[in-house]
Amino acid sequence: MVEPMTYTAAVSGATGYAGGEVLRLLCGHPDIEIATVAAHSSAGQKLGALQPHLHALADRDVVESTAQNLTGHDVVFLALPHGQSAALAEQLPAGTVVIDAGADHRLESAEAWGAFYGSDHAGTWPYGLPELLVDPNGRKQRENLPGATRIAVPGCYPTGSLLALAPALAAGLVSPQDIVIVSASGTSGAGKALKPHLLGAETMGGMSPYGVGGGHRHTPEIEQGLGWAAGEGVRISFTPTLAPMPRGILTTATAALRPGTTEEAVREAYRAAYDGEPFVHLLPEGQWPTTKSVQASNHVALQLAVDPHAGRLVVSAAIDNLTKGTAGAAVQSLNLALGLPETSGLAAQGVAP
Amino acid sequence: MVEPMTYTAAVSGATGYAGGEVLRLLCGHPDIEIATVAAHSSAGQKLGALQPHLHALADRDVVESTAQNLTGHDVVFLALPHGQSAALAEQLPAGTVVIDAGADHRLESAEAWGAFYGSDHAGTWPYGLPELLVDPNGRKQRENLPGATRIAVPGCYPTGSLLALAPALAAGLVSPQDIVIVSASGTSGAGKALKPHLLGAETMGGMSPYGVGGGHRHTPEIEQGLGWAAGEGVRISFTPTLAPMPRGILTTATAALRPGTTEEAVREAYRAAYDGEPFVHLLPEGQWPTTKSVQASNHVALQLAVDPHAGRLVVSAAIDNLTKGTAGAAVQSLNLALGLPETSGLAAQGVAP
Amino acid sequence: MVEPMTYTAAVSGATGYAGGEVLRLLCGHPDIEIATVAAHSSAGQKLGALQPHLHALADRDVVESTAQNLTGHDVVFLALPHGQSAALAEQLPAGTVVIDAGADHRLESAEAWGAFYGSDHAGTWPYGLPELLVDPNGRKQRENLPGATRIAVPGCYPTGSLLALAPALAAGLVSPQDIVIVSASGTSGAGKALKPHLLGAETMGGMSPYGVGGGHRHTPEIEQGLGWAAGEGVRISFTPTLAPMPRGILTTATAALRPGTTEEAVREAYRAAYDGEPFVHLLPEGQWPTTKSVQASNHVALQLAVDPHAGRLVVSAAIDNLTKGTAGAAVQSLNLALGLPETSGLAAQGVAP
Amino acid sequence: MVEPMTYTAAVSGATGYAGGEVLRLLCGHPDIEIATVAAHSSAGQKLGALQPHLHALADRDVVESTAQNLTGHDVVFLALPHGQSAALAEQLPAGTVVIDAGADHRLESAEAWGAFYGSDHAGTWPYGLPELLVDPNGRKQRENLPGATRIAVPGCYPTGSLLALAPALAAGLVSPQDIVIVSASGTSGAGKALKPHLLGAETMGGMSPYGVGGGHRHTPEIEQGLGWAAGEGVRISFTPTLAPMPRGILTTATAALRPGTTEEAVREAYRAAYDGEPFVHLLPEGQWPTTKSVQASNHVALQLAVDPHAGRLVVSAAIDNLTKGTAGAAVQSLNLALGLPETSGLAAQGVAP
Repeated sequence: MVEPMTYTAAVSGATGYAGGEVLRLLCGHPDIEIATVAAHSSAGQKLGALQPHLHALADRDVVESTAQNLTGHDVVFLALPHGQSAALAEQLPAGTVVIDAGADHRLESAEAWGAFYGSDHAGTWPYGLPELLVDPNGRKQRENLPGATRIAVPGCYPTGSLLALAPALAAGLVSPQDIVIVSASGTSGAGKALKPHLLGAETMGGMSPYGVGGGHRHTPEIEQGLGWAAGEGVRISFTPTLAPMPRGILTTATAALRPGTTEEAVREAYRAAYDGEPFVHLLPEGQWPTTKSVQASNHVALQLAVDPHAGRLVVSAAIDNLTKGTAGAAVQSLNLALGLPETSGLAAQGVAP
Repeated sequence: MVEPMTYTAAVSGATGYAGGEVLRLLCGHPDIEIATVAAHSSAGQKLGALQPHLHALADRDVVESTAQNLTGHDVVFLALPHGQSAALAEQLPAGTVVIDAGADHRLESAEAWGAFYGSDHAGTWPYGLPELLVDPNGRKQRENLPGATRIAVPGCYPTGSLLALAPALAAGLVSPQDIVIVSASGTSGAGKALKPHLLGAETMGGMSPYGVGGGHRHTPEIEQGLGWAAGEGVRISFTPTLAPMPRGILTTATAALRPGTTEEAVREAYRAAYDGEPFVHLLPEGQWPTTKSVQASNHVALQLAVDPHAGRLVVSAAIDNLTKGTAGAAVQSLNLALGLPETSGLAAQGVAP
Repeated sequence: MVEPMTYTAAVSGATGYAGGEVLRLLCGHPDIEIATVAAHSSAGQKLGALQPHLHALADRDVVESTAQNLTGHDVVFLALPHGQSAALAEQLPAGTVVIDAGADHRLESAEAWGAFYGSDHAGTWPYGLPELLVDPNGRKQRENLPGATRIAVPGCYPTGSLLALAPALAAGLVSPQDIVIVSASGTSGAGKALKPHLLGAETMGGMSPYGVGGGHRHTPEIEQGLGWAAGEGVRISFTPTLAPMPRGILTTATAALRPGTTEEAVREAYRAAYDGEPFVHLLPEGQWPTTKSVQASNHVALQLAVDPHAGRLVVSAAIDNLTKGTAGAAVQSLNLALGLPETSGLAAQGVAP
Repeated sequence: MVEPMTYTAAVSGATGYAGGEVLRLLCGHPDIEIATVAAHSSAGQKLGALQPHLHALADRDVVESTAQNLTGHDVVFLALPHGQSAALAEQLPAGTVVIDAGADHRLESAEAWGAFYGSDHAGTWPYGLPELLVDPNGRKQRENLPGATRIAVPGCYPTGSLLALAPALAAGLVSPQDIVIVSASGTSGAGKALKPHLLGAETMGGMSPYGVGGGHRHTPEIEQGLGWAAGEGVRISFTPTLAPMPRGILTTATAALRPGTTEEAVREAYRAAYDGEPFVHLLPEGQWPTTKSVQASNHVALQLAVDPHAGRLVVSAAIDNLTKGTAGAAVQSLNLALGLPETSGLAAQGVAP
């Protein structure tokens, strides 16, 4: 029996989109008490002025995001730009569960880190994607999370891409060398950065690509995770696009089929991988994912098609970039780390329309 | 002490936007068990094909919305076009709590009903807006709901308009004869009706008014509720507009100030009316409501300004038309009817961005 | 017969939304040659990097917006933040036609200018709203523009509000003291300023008011123009709201009817005012304006209703804030100033859907 | 010298999105007079009630779309659902220039037609994509259009896909057997069909794929056109997605590079293909297409990247589905057929923001 116990939490980066989503979920978590909300430039203000949707926390004071202010909690969430969480995390007690929603501790390869982020590699923490197949034998990342005190939350694009293709790669049904992924993300994925192309007048009604040709920082992270599932090196072509919506990622992932692979074989591999998962849903045949069906929830909607003409598997995955793509994965991983029910605080359905 | 007890519920109109939102909220309600999902033209399908965001209910069979199928539950929600719920409700047991999200039982005046709906008046049920001042002495509609077995859920526009102006009218601070309300609603307010002007290509990127000049059916309902608060007859000019968003209503309500009325007096009346309310929030001075701050939640955000130059009070109110404007009010009123905590199943914060 | 002649033009503020729209229209103007595109912080770049929709001008160099660079053109458009155009205009030759799309020269009252803008009043230029009735006898502002060498382009909100109510006021059909205007604007109306609330993730899917209670700077401009039409002082309650669309303003303007005023009398006043106008359209009865019907065009769509119950006239007006609300009015006024056909360069229909 | 002459035009399907866009462009065409607007279910109404953005045509009567009503014009545009234009076209005089914006006459292969459309093949007309390379030697489709009296307007997805990949295939720089295309389209691409998933409340804020796995009817059309350029058979994996915007298609097209291909070689092939084209623009390096930069215009924005890690070329193409993707191509092709300047009536820049 789980002892009734409340864990205290601090959230750093509380005024950004990721931090706000962590707080939103924690407001509904039965075992977590939000003790501290911290940020940098807006320290000293009331949270209600910055995150007006968090009515329950409107009167909370935003404190400076220092190690001192974050110390003394059972759990610390870091929702910070890459490069900032590592320095802060080093100063936190070893027994504190630190959940890093940023990129600092995701990559195993110091070389890849250097090539894509241009700074020193801070090390690697357990990867917070419980449903991910991490070897060809069906083992999942979930097994690595109980008791963890440091967890790296996956990037939003990798979450959709990894769940979309890992079962096919683990089962050896597609080539690990001929993979093309195109994702469309809502603009909250770019954070609250004040850049001209993120203004509403620019984003509403239009789409554009970015980081094309292998330049996006999530590319090595996707290859890393797919490589775990495949049991061998994986190369992808990844193109992210910015879509005119606040939230959500729609991933279209395709891979060259191994000769003779049938749709039924593929479907069976996905059923085997995800049946019983509380958040990952292979939809009934004929029904395709929409990002709105998972909006503001920790759910993932998947569907697949085998195209014999082109010789490719096409998998479509819909997630909410801020929930399953960030804050939901953080809470889900925390639940596993603490031995709480994996779905605690994450029971909400998608918000639609 | 509240006995731990689970009430069974049926939802009729389960495939529409209002019915879907009722189900979304009930999925998170600790004391309600969704026993039956009913609809008309889509009976026989799985709910997951029609409301794909309700992952927990994806495998539920949609049954025909007959009195027989709805009988035998503790609670029945009717989310039907006006004119349909009255006939159905008559056939349900007197002891069943019936919550009508449609218009049939909102208006006291048979004459107003006939003028705006053109059919026979079905009668009047207790009005499900607990926070509404219903006389000049501060009594609220909340008092009329415990033990009720028939409840009329307010219209979405009235919810915002009534909460915006009732305190000023109850306190005699504004004229009941010089009121102008302009509201902007997300397109889910028009339901799932297949009409050309509701197509995405039409609604995205544009705004338009409708029902101008007093013709909208919510006009008599707003006047009725404001009349309760004022203790005298009220006349309004109400113009609804369709805004390019899926959800939310932003109401701009203005009324001619009584001579000598100060902003502090008005603010005090609103504080007196809403301090302590779990869902209605008069924001700190200088902060204005946004519909996104209440999205997918039962919260209401209010702010006001006294304009001495124009001699008018301006109150801005933001709600989610499907939550506080429909399904949230339904659940909140049900909680009161059953003696459950008023906020059960409604604890969620707004979803933003 | 108009002599075939080409006028050279410079556009200052060429990288903003208003400047971009001026350039877009000038690209299609048969008598204007765009000689110089000037801006401040982005001087030295190619225009194509900043206004990628202006394909014809992609290779143009953006020069510094100095008086020297702007001198030597027949026409200079100033699309600058308020306070900047007056200083620049003073240094331009008296014979150059200077069109100020900013606020500096709109208000006649130095007192109103000081109260709302807090700086010295730069003086008043002819007001670029040709269709506006400027006295109760039917005279229009069009008469004041031929030969003008200095023109103040109206604000975007005033354009819709003035055209919506001037005919009723000029005809004495409504009270000049009981006017309520609520407008919803696309976010380009706020310019390219990098402010958090203008980010796409914030604006998409939500609405909010601002400048409530008489604080918006367009209030005195609307009262000034309506005062011309009424032949007496006018007081308005004006509330602007930010809508989730890139362009467009939907104005809902209401005024207390003089006793005995019929809808036919009002309709006749509007027909008298606007029949034959190339850009202002009183729609057929029963058809209401949509902002998309005027998108990217210089057209104005109007409809009205008399509400005898509330005793108010309600007029709905749709414009594109960047076209008729700014750049279209600039070009139209320039045409009149130069003696060109009023519609030159402005023939485009609205862009829909 | 082009003789000053006006051609009379009829537009069938005038009340749909494609027909409306044809009319919008023709309103600005110096050599075309719109003589007849025809439709089916809305015949007898005024066009202004159905296409309110076409102010110049508001008073036009919509006539029944019969061969008789369409006969007697120099040009007839057919903007009809597939299967309807062939029957109608057969009844029109041979000398009339008939432009079919539908699918009936695009495919050369009767087998492909049958497999994807399930009806008899109506035959093949000259394909209205002037800039398309139609053999490996640099010949373009433009050469096939002068004097044509029957023209098939390309599908909207094929337009972007073909222009994105034809130069690389014609130059032999990529494999014709390993091509993956993912496109995001605004919802006007689905027409005015009254389907639940096209309602604004469904489309705003979300994305979804459809026709996945090779099922979309534009697949054989893309393969046909790319096959012309490659001089050999081409196989593609094509996934269309529905994006929350009214207009625009963003295409991400990737193909496996031939060994040793450099980015400079690819870039040179695209420059050779498109330099001097009035509507197709390879953007400066580092600048990526946005659909808003081509909105409501006949322009195409292209950019490319060579990804040596993945071994793929990635080309991004932005078009407006209704303009270059339909009505603009129709007018451009007509200009070529009639010997008018190719850009007549198509000079407009993109509309942004």
